[in-house]
Amino acid sequence: MKVIIVGGVAGGASCAARLRRLDEKAEILMVERGPYVSYANCGLPYHVGGSIEKESSLLVATEQLFRNQFAIDCRTNCEAISISPEKKTIELKNHITGEVSTEKYDKLVLSPGAAPIRPPLPGIDLPGIFSVRTVPDARHIREWLERDSDRNEVTNPYSGIDTVSKPKRAVVVGGGFIGLEMAENLVHRGLEVTLIEKLDQVMPPLDREMARLVERYMTKHGIHVELNDGVAGFRKSAKGSLEVLTESGKAHPADIVIMAIGVRPETALAKSAGLEIGKRGGIRVDDQMHTSDPDIFAVGDAIEVKDFVTGQWALIPLAGPANRQGRIVADVIAGRNAHYRGTQGTSICQIFDATISQTGVSEKVLKQLGDTDYEKIYLYPNSHAGYYPGAKMLIIKVLFRKSNGRLLGAQVLGEDGVAKRIDSFAMAIQMGCTIYDLEESELSYAPPYGSAKDPVNFAGMVAVDVLNGDMPLTHWDNLGDGFLLDVRNPQELAVESVPGALNIPLPELRSRIGELPRDREILVICRSAQRAYYATRILLQKGFKAKNISGGMLSRSHCSQD
Amino acid sequence: MKVIIVGGVAGGASCAARLRRLDEKAEILMVERGPYVSYANCGLPYHVGGSIEKESSLLVATEQLFRNQFAIDCRTNCEAISISPEKKTIELKNHITGEVSTEKYDKLVLSPGAAPIRPPLPGIDLPGIFSVRTVPDARHIREWLERDSDRNEVTNPYSGIDTVSKPKRAVVVGGGFIGLEMAENLVHRGLEVTLIEKLDQVMPPLDREMARLVERYMTKHGIHVELNDGVAGFRKSAKGSLEVLTESGKAHPADIVIMAIGVRPETALAKSAGLEIGKRGGIRVDDQMHTSDPDIFAVGDAIEVKDFVTGQWALIPLAGPANRQGRIVADVIAGRNAHYRGTQGTSICQIFDATISQTGVSEKVLKQLGDTDYEKIYLYPNSHAGYYPGAKMLIIKVLFRKSNGRLLGAQVLGEDGVAKRIDSFAMAIQMGCTIYDLEESELSYAPPYGSAKDPVNFAGMVAVDVLNGDMPLTHWDNLGDGFLLDVRNPQELAVESVPGALNIPLPELRSRIGELPRDREILVICRSAQRAYYATRILLQKGFKAKNISGGMLSRSHCSQD
Repeated sequence: MKVIIVGGVAGGASCAARLRRLDEKAEILMVERGPYVSYANCGLPYHVGGSIEKESSLLVATEQLFRNQFAIDCRTNCEAISISPEKKTIELKNHITGEVSTEKYDKLVLSPGAAPIRPPLPGIDLPGIFSVRTVPDARHIREWLERDSDRNEVTNPYSGIDTVSKPKRAVVVGGGFIGLEMAENLVHRGLEVTLIEKLDQVMPPLDREMARLVERYMTKHGIHVELNDGVAGFRKSAKGSLEVLTESGKAHPADIVIMAIGVRPETALAKSAGLEIGKRGGIRVDDQMHTSDPDIFAVGDAIEVKDFVTGQWALIPLAGPANRQGRIVADVIAGRNAHYRGTQGTSICQIFDATISQTGVSEKVLKQLGDTDYEKIYLYPNSHAGYYPGAKMLIIKVLFRKSNGRLLGAQVLGEDGVAKRIDSFAMAIQMGCTIYDLEESELSYAPPYGSAKDPVNFAGMVAVDVLNGDMPLTHWDNLGDGFLLDVRNPQELAVESVPGALNIPLPELRSRIGELPRDREILVICRSAQRAYYATRILLQKGFKAKNISGGMLSRSHCSQD
Repeated sequence: MKVIIVGGVAGGASCAARLRRLDEKAEILMVERGPYVSYANCGLPYHVGGSIEKESSLLVATEQLFRNQFAIDCRTNCEAISISPEKKTIELKNHITGEVSTEKYDKLVLSPGAAPIRPPLPGIDLPGIFSVRTVPDARHIREWLERDSDRNEVTNPYSGIDTVSKPKRAVVVGGGFIGLEMAENLVHRGLEVTLIEKLDQVMPPLDREMARLVERYMTKHGIHVELNDGVAGFRKSAKGSLEVLTESGKAHPADIVIMAIGVRPETALAKSAGLEIGKRGGIRVDDQMHTSDPDIFAVGDAIEVKDFVTGQWALIPLAGPANRQGRIVADVIAGRNAHYRGTQGTSICQIFDATISQTGVSEKVLKQLGDTDYEKIYLYPNSHAGYYPGAKMLIIKVLFRKSNGRLLGAQVLGEDGVAKRIDSFAMAIQMGCTIYDLEESELSYAPPYGSAKDPVNFAGMVAVDVLNGDMPLTHWDNLGDGFLLDVRNPQELAVESVPGALNIPLPELRSRIGELPRDREILVICRSAQRAYYATRILLQKGFKAKNISGGMLSRSHCSQD
């Protein structure tokens, strides 16, 4: 059996290695258009930033390793240019020699990835405008950042970084993972960075009110964040640097521009072979990664996946799923019964000292689907016991089904303990967990790591209180004409108060309950919604209509309508 | 309805607060023998060590807070001395006034905790021998450490720490959580620390071969670890300091001794009331925390719990379970249908820069139960992408059912990313996860946090390969008379080699396969068992009998029989 794999990075390389382990006799040919296989594209921003110093660190496995260790015919600089599904042949072009050859396959695996979107804007081809996809891309960015433009040559990266002629101002176009990581890494290199995003938020997998906090954090760290403004074009300024022109008419000066407005599945080859393409533009596959041709498989960023939670087709370009898909194809080719479960969209991103993460579905996506069978909560627990040094506030949003308590999604931000929590939520979603399970889950606790009630337990407890009716909930963007009751202490109100709210500190509530109206819905406010929960319980039991405002004052600044 | 809660720390305080939220009308009386309620006993070692500076930081909620915020009659220094289940009364003694009173209850909740075991050894009452359970315990230890013994008075904690008369040598008796945390914290204070443990390992929840690594790590950090030696007594030395005498006849000089040999459920009150006590010595409860008297509940360290994985009764004193049990009692008293699921034993411990963690069942416990339907694997993955700075090796042991793949337990050690992984495993076990689920789980990945195949995925993949028969496995303590094949490179063998093993580097295996015997079981070795896995796959497909040695050379030093 001869298997040809097109694309030698995450999904392709994973498939090739696994297939060799399962089938020592299979003839395996893996071709990669670029100069490297199995390189760490997730590391590229950090190589640009300098925390990964050596380019060679990014090369996880080499062509030679695939040949020697796996007996795989591995060819770099070799592009698949057309497929004949009827003849089961593929045409390959060697980019070094220019030679074109035709190879027969029994099974073909497509793992071409996705290409950075590069819209045909005026000036897009000016020098100094880069994408970040490949090792050479990162190399070119580094060279550009290290150049001495007066002498128009590449200088020592660490010698003259402060000379006048070095790039000083960067514009990053696009506020997704790569955009954020590049923005941070360019700040680390000493550049003044502007991030331009056409949408009304950065980090599209997050809900907008959570992204607000990311934007503020970036601003606090010196990044100029410009939302709701698309790029209209680029031009060379009088001084020889670039200008990024936006749809709103602004011109942002830039010595370097990073284009990171997203990726588009590489489907040209699949289309030329007549393979079915999904509505979202990715190659359509079944749960064994078969394309519409049973002898051709596809994996990775080029395909559409089923969203694990919603069951909808989606484009979710992530390394973990690509690797698992590659393994599944190898299993299927080797005659095993493997199935892909769908993609949850678990992701995580470092930005300065903070971590941004999410798993499962966002509220935005639920709304797009017209799904109203959900509730949401906001929590602001400590990352670990508050009495142990270094505790930081976590910011957590959890979405769950109103009808059955199933956990739908979680978004976690913070400067400590984020990965611990998002992975608990991610594993929970994978296992079909409900909020009742979250409440009872037994997570690790010692003062440096968590609390006896871990934030994940705490999320379950709060959610259960909501579903049980113990704690009716409302949100800052939906206060209606409720009567506002603030149960914080007067000292807290001195810092920030809510106009029109009556203040009765919680310890006085029982004795002053006569001050509250019985004919209106009472919306209770405190710092984090904990004391407001206690107050809500008192009020409900005393016959009042009461709701807690989720997340309390900590939610107010980012969850209120703006 | 009147509810009396005996014990105002984790389980009791949690129950009291929850009950008030559920029932505004209930009369709630919470009594605590000691001077503080709801204090952070998990923080005591860190207060001794100084990283938690203020004693007041340990007081999570005060008596006053319970009174004012929760309208709970909260009494400290108040001990329950007897119960009359027939009359439904309890006798309380006020330790300040000496007054004894009798209170009637409708429901009684016992949360008395567990007391440090203090065996009646010769000299046990000598000054300078401490337990670590309460805030006053920690205070007395600090005072002792800060005293100037020549002047026999307490000195400023931070002025004269290096004077000759300060305690310099500590002996910690017992190698469990508290013992380890105390040992570390005493090292931080500049003491020379000896840890004495009667068992053949520290950290009893870990398997012995995993504990080996902890012991080495402690030794590396200057702690003298003495295993297999019990304490026989204490005496005052000629110089006025202490000596700890052991069963083996040693005498360890000590200026301070910390007794941390475990805790014993406080069952005196329960016994006096005729409540059923389990075989392991804890109060017996059902899954709604009822004792044998339907109006008396018990929670926390004083009770026996069902082990979540094995279903056996066990004593597992942990703060998280105690808190959840307290909530469940409140729910049940309030007429709700809440049930406790059992305790997994998820725990985590910091020791210098390392983290030690476990969840679910250990191999030791499976062996004690005569359970042979399990397999184990050892893994040594990076905590995050190796090319990103700061990656550290994780040491992972995973136990799973041979018959159905169910995840039974995990032990994770390392200096980075441990909590992220143990919580994934913990959530997985709570949800009845199999190794097939682990393989497909979608955990967070970006270079600073993990790998595209997270260590938890990787554990699933390896385990599935074992159960599928793709990778027959053996272990260093069970090599039998297999033929040893080492597939590492010669440079690696120069550092450490296995006597009698034939070396064929993996890339040469296919061409040199004729050198291997067909009539013997070939046991394959490499550094981490990854290349050995590739080799095993080649050998099996070429008709050899082959097994991988789990964990490779990285397992050898701690998993070989000693």
